[in-house]
Amino acid sequence: MQLDAFTRRSLVFTLLCFAVVCAQAESLPSWQDLENRRALIDFVDATTTPTSPSFIPPAERIAVFDNDGTLWGEQPLYYQLVFALDRIRQLAPTNPEWRTRQPFQAVLENDLGRIMQGGEQAVLQLVMASHAGMNTAEFSKVVETWLARARHPQTARPYTEMVYQPMLELLAYLRANGYETFIVSGGGIEFLRVFAEEVYGIPPQQVDGSSVETRYQVGDTGPELRREPRIDFIDDKAGKPVGINRHIGRRPVIAVGNSDGDFQMLEWTTAGRGPRLGVLVHHDDAAREFAYDRESKIGRLARGLDEAEERGWRVVSMKNDWKQIYPDAKIP
Amino acid sequence: MQLDAFTRRSLVFTLLCFAVVCAQAESLPSWQDLENRRALIDFVDATTTPTSPSFIPPAERIAVFDNDGTLWGEQPLYYQLVFALDRIRQLAPTNPEWRTRQPFQAVLENDLGRIMQGGEQAVLQLVMASHAGMNTAEFSKVVETWLARARHPQTARPYTEMVYQPMLELLAYLRANGYETFIVSGGGIEFLRVFAEEVYGIPPQQVDGSSVETRYQVGDTGPELRREPRIDFIDDKAGKPVGINRHIGRRPVIAVGNSDGDFQMLEWTTAGRGPRLGVLVHHDDAAREFAYDRESKIGRLARGLDEAEERGWRVVSMKNDWKQIYPDAKIP
Repeated sequence: MQLDAFTRRSLVFTLLCFAVVCAQAESLPSWQDLENRRALIDFVDATTTPTSPSFIPPAERIAVFDNDGTLWGEQPLYYQLVFALDRIRQLAPTNPEWRTRQPFQAVLENDLGRIMQGGEQAVLQLVMASHAGMNTAEFSKVVETWLARARHPQTARPYTEMVYQPMLELLAYLRANGYETFIVSGGGIEFLRVFAEEVYGIPPQQVDGSSVETRYQVGDTGPELRREPRIDFIDDKAGKPVGINRHIGRRPVIAVGNSDGDFQMLEWTTAGRGPRLGVLVHHDDAAREFAYDRESKIGRLARGLDEAEERGWRVVSMKNDWKQIYPDAKIP
Repeated sequence: MQLDAFTRRSLVFTLLCFAVVCAQAESLPSWQDLENRRALIDFVDATTTPTSPSFIPPAERIAVFDNDGTLWGEQPLYYQLVFALDRIRQLAPTNPEWRTRQPFQAVLENDLGRIMQGGEQAVLQLVMASHAGMNTAEFSKVVETWLARARHPQTARPYTEMVYQPMLELLAYLRANGYETFIVSGGGIEFLRVFAEEVYGIPPQQVDGSSVETRYQVGDTGPELRREPRIDFIDDKAGKPVGINRHIGRRPVIAVGNSDGDFQMLEWTTAGRGPRLGVLVHHDDAAREFAYDRESKIGRLARGLDEAEERGWRVVSMKNDWKQIYPDAKIP
């Protein structure tokens, strides 16, 4: 493509103006200007400055984020589990047998302790009953309706406003620097996709998560994908590198998580050659959010804390590193 | 962001110059200027012109392509099956039992008829023996080495030059118009990713295909993903909409295939609301490529031909629509 001298000069001038304007806006404004914020910015600078020895070409700039406890909250109960319980209650009238069958009975009697006693098996039964038996479009609609109405028991906010402002800024900052941002979550892939684009700016093709089997069929209303009550894939722990490899096919440069369910994702990411960054969000802010780690049933973080230093992973303190936890409330 | 008047004018002027330069380059130069080429261009214009009633926002512009027979050839044998057979021969010295065990014996005796008699089960055994039992990095290396050396039996070209020039142009044209181009192939996802970025401009995260199970483990040389001799997913026929939903999570706008293995992909795509485009490449050029459809064991196309018209799918004739089949040979 040939450009004349005036066009070339105009282009250079325009790009320079943009660069100056962009540099003036402060990056990561909700992050305290401490070591972690500086390390994030230094890492992005080093990997995106063409003359840097750590430069990474745009096509290889992949950043992966856990969701529960990393991008949004997970206390006092995983939000998707709250959805499952609400959905069970909603479906109860057409499933009268649930009144005397566990773990459904416990849900209908609001006996959370009893549900938890049932362990993984009980949770799995509840997830299948609430997440399958319909097609993908119907499921999205159910989730959408729930998200619009449900409120967090302690803050009374919609769950989509229980996201972390500093992480929204980090996602946007990475994308502005040519990184593709992916969600790699133990949560349900189709559940996440309902809000990930609007809330996080992450389109469906950049969301990976756990899934149920789907089956293609041509029904009375045309082709559809039926959600079957069988687990297809659990995208957690050692499943995260497997999911990353299948979905992305390239080792990430940056991995951000908050629990030992993210350990292997960070391990796999930071074992790659060249510059890599592992980040763990530490929930240590009882006043503004929740404080939990080693002993928590939800979002347990023990091995990550023990090994972060030797592995060179950064541990972000919500209490010390974040000026603000949630975004400013939307005006209703 | 505030821009002063001069910057704004410079920007507008620069963008206008670009637009003029781009419009001057002819789109799809290897396509004969017939109905199909015009329909492709009209569809892209209609879906990308902001004032058009058929306008589609950039985030929703998803185009999916089959690979075998659509982006590259598949005759006289699927190229990935050629790889599997070559790999079996290479591994034979360390697997002496194969000399008397089918279907391996047939491979070592170059008895293709006998292999085919074994049907899917035989092919599966060969794929497992040649594609698993190593980690993902090792597998990529094996494929890379094979692609560098192997030559097509009839043209003596590397397989990566047995791609269709008009399709390379279509991929680039769609991307230039804000479409994301994905491969959705019955072939192996990890096999495709070795060359898809360099050959098609399609990065690993936009490649979906069939897969074997992988298992994460930390071995002597660090974390790795072991390829296990078990099928994880077959991304063919009714599996294609399933794969599209899992990998992309959004119904495509454009689907391009060539065989009845792509039927459901086109069906799912074109059943969506709003503008959709289904395209079938018809191999009808015995002189420059191969001529096959209803009776072919590889790339059979019957139902697609029967129903294309009523479904509004475009059937592209390689003979009539394409000026050129393969790219100009690279100077070695």
